[in-house]
Amino acid sequence: MSVVFSTRKSVEQVEEGRELAPKFDAEGLIPCVTTAAAGGDVLMLGYMNAEALKKTIETGEAHYWSRSRQVLWHKGASSGLVQKVVELRIDDDQDAVWLRVEIPGDASCHVGYRSCFYRSVPLGHGSHELQFEEQHKAFDPKKVYGDAPNPTKL
Amino acid sequence: MSVVFSTRKSVEQVEEGRELAPKFDAEGLIPCVTTAAAGGDVLMLGYMNAEALKKTIETGEAHYWSRSRQVLWHKGASSGLVQKVVELRIDDDQDAVWLRVEIPGDASCHVGYRSCFYRSVPLGHGSHELQFEEQHKAFDPKKVYGDAPNPTKL
Repeated sequence: MSVVFSTRKSVEQVEEGRELAPKFDAEGLIPCVTTAAAGGDVLMLGYMNAEALKKTIETGEAHYWSRSRQVLWHKGASSGLVQKVVELRIDDDQDAVWLRVEIPGDASCHVGYRSCFYRSVPLGHGSHELQFEEQHKAFDPKKVYGDAPNPTKL
Repeated sequence: MSVVFSTRKSVEQVEEGRELAPKFDAEGLIPCVTTAAAGGDVLMLGYMNAEALKKTIETGEAHYWSRSRQVLWHKGASSGLVQKVVELRIDDDQDAVWLRVEIPGDASCHVGYRSCFYRSVPLGHGSHELQFEEQHKAFDPKKVYGDAPNPTKL
């Protein structure tokens, strides 16, 4: 059975119903929070278009839309760090997705860390210099990605 | 010390540095994943403008930008469900924020559930009818919000 999205007809249908009726933004994207099934840390925040969401549901492997490369992105196709989806959830108004995934090598971030969120911001009125919460990279991005362009945009 | 954001000068500065240099999108917003400090469940995906991010850092209470109401939103100001920030993290390219929060009453979602992500989507090629992962609402939204308009947009 292929994935078919329902038309959004009412707030009650979207919030309290059992129909999958996702809302994509003006660029055709829906944000996706991806957490580690083991431990629960947030690994990354990505974006999916309709095709990426359908492929994720059908295959059980995380697919995103790469905004920097403007292509469907089967995460791990080049790095080997495929994300196996344990659970996929959708939020109240169906404009955000949450994936719980297993990751090989316990690494996910293109910079080499386990999570993309490897730095914290101190709260309050003192210094707000970023603190590294991961002390070591989980892998060497040069070895994994070679000369592929860095996706970070200024 | 007030929060001051640095100018984004290089990929290395943004990814490997200690300067807070967040990237806001064309609408001046940055997405924010909010998880429960206890247990780690994703509670909501919100958005912050520069003021909301600064107020969150300075006060230790979660502030967002309400896209439906177009106002700075001190979460819990009307419901009492204030989110106390335990940790604030920023991602590799500094275009996403992760808050770990404590929530009073163990409830967060305007529909009445603990998490906004109270439904899952079955994977694979069978039925994709949504499954409720929370069986009971944590509070009665009518009692908490009264006649305030529902923020969900079709």
